[in-house]
Amino acid sequence: MKVVALSGGVGGAKILLGLYRILPPGSLTAIVNVADDFEWHGLHISPDLDTALYALAGLSDYGRGWGIAGDTFNMLEALRLLGEPSWFAVGDRDLATHILRTRWLAEGLSLSEVTARFTDRLRIAATILPATNETLRTWIRHPGGVMAFQEYFVLNRWQTEVEGVEFQGSGCDPTPGVLQAIEQSDLFVVGPSNPVVSIWPILHVKGVRDAIYSLRSARVGISPIVGGSAVSGPAGKLLKALGYQVSAAGVAQFYSGLLTHFVIHRTDTDLVGRIESLGMRVLATDIIMGSLESKARLAEEILQWVLN
Amino acid sequence: MKVVALSGGVGGAKILLGLYRILPPGSLTAIVNVADDFEWHGLHISPDLDTALYALAGLSDYGRGWGIAGDTFNMLEALRLLGEPSWFAVGDRDLATHILRTRWLAEGLSLSEVTARFTDRLRIAATILPATNETLRTWIRHPGGVMAFQEYFVLNRWQTEVEGVEFQGSGCDPTPGVLQAIEQSDLFVVGPSNPVVSIWPILHVKGVRDAIYSLRSARVGISPIVGGSAVSGPAGKLLKALGYQVSAAGVAQFYSGLLTHFVIHRTDTDLVGRIESLGMRVLATDIIMGSLESKARLAEEILQWVLN
Repeated sequence: MKVVALSGGVGGAKILLGLYRILPPGSLTAIVNVADDFEWHGLHISPDLDTALYALAGLSDYGRGWGIAGDTFNMLEALRLLGEPSWFAVGDRDLATHILRTRWLAEGLSLSEVTARFTDRLRIAATILPATNETLRTWIRHPGGVMAFQEYFVLNRWQTEVEGVEFQGSGCDPTPGVLQAIEQSDLFVVGPSNPVVSIWPILHVKGVRDAIYSLRSARVGISPIVGGSAVSGPAGKLLKALGYQVSAAGVAQFYSGLLTHFVIHRTDTDLVGRIESLGMRVLATDIIMGSLESKARLAEEILQWVLN
Repeated sequence: MKVVALSGGVGGAKILLGLYRILPPGSLTAIVNVADDFEWHGLHISPDLDTALYALAGLSDYGRGWGIAGDTFNMLEALRLLGEPSWFAVGDRDLATHILRTRWLAEGLSLSEVTARFTDRLRIAATILPATNETLRTWIRHPGGVMAFQEYFVLNRWQTEVEGVEFQGSGCDPTPGVLQAIEQSDLFVVGPSNPVVSIWPILHVKGVRDAIYSLRSARVGISPIVGGSAVSGPAGKLLKALGYQVSAAGVAQFYSGLLTHFVIHRTDTDLVGRIESLGMRVLATDIIMGSLESKARLAEEILQWVLN
């Protein structure tokens, strides 16, 4: 039983953790967005990889959704006192990951080798693959030009008016194992991550879209939108900027042709007909994964629904 | 009134702070050892420069003698959990300095430019000069070969049997301003730092020894040894390894010809005659600088003694 899930940060990591808790060790492969990666004071930060690593290692701050539970921010405060901008919140424990990743990359390891080393050291019985080892970056197009994703997402708190997104490095090679994992999967999942800036970049990696299209097994998406807004983050604003309706149906439209199954929140049953008309089977259930239990329950429910 | 002081870490920083507190702003220039510098997980750490910066910025942990007061060690703990050695204790606040220094060096600034930027950002009204911008490193020779200074000092807690020390980069160029500062000083001070591994490397920088010899103003040393042992650290062991007596007289012998005045502890008055026979005037007073007040008092006492 091989399960592959595409994931961005917070939303995607929830279902990764749910799947990880119910599947036998070694069954799960996460293919993770790297288009939000950036350099911060000379350190290579991979926010979505870190969120996946921390979630599966049991280190996550479930309330905040990013970083390590109980982390402190004393380095950041010292940096601020030294006159440096401190808008990107790097925790002290979190920093160990960035320092090691940067060192290992400088020593010549690829991002996927670095990630495998972290997975190993954190005793995670799953495979976490960065979508690519090459430079793939999201740029946000706005009336004044373009800005890097973290500037939009963290510094501007997604209040910038978005005209579109651009992917630098589109068509880059997948990391070794990405296409094989998709091809050999018994179940393929797209997590409730931001479709535009978390999942779409992964679909711009060479061969990924074709590998998914070729799958005979079920391809299940989970909506990051409940009612008329995103569970968290700028998914709503970005879908709207690209001309999609801000609803689970808008997300299903975004993935039209790619997915065979779609999971929406139980309060959105009025959308079932529209999503089914896109050629997808629909499950309406509780998709708010606040607790660890609710993550495992949703994962279990999806497996039962799709595989039976 | 221009005062120049040579300094290593903990001991030297005490008299730096004492001088800084009693002198008019802008009067003090510290020339600081860099032979203990090393790379740690890709970060450039300058322990003695940091100790001087933190002391003059009022950030020091006076009890511990290194690092920043009230600092936490959460990054280090996370690094340990990731399976990395954690014998060099880097605090979370302290880390901001290493991250910025490494970034600025990578951007092409010299170590002295980086240090000036820190001095400026920390609003320190003194000049702190690394002895050299080139690579000058202390290696400890022992029966089995050589080891880097931090390995001897921190990892082995100076328990290795020492046969000698070697300075990689001996004869390197001084940083701009070092020789001029010495030449123009009204008072020249050698702090109570380790003579062998803190002050001696500075004396291996091209032109420094000659500039000191050429001075007509007073050249004052403060003993790091009280009775038969060092106030802190391995100064006693290293002096003994090089064949010097472990006493204030042994230190005076080490600096013989270089200094005109020497300050010893009030309990070491039996050594006055021997030190005077080396051609130095001697002041015996309380040289244990535990409190901020005692640092300023000793600095004041030295100024009165030498300049009146």
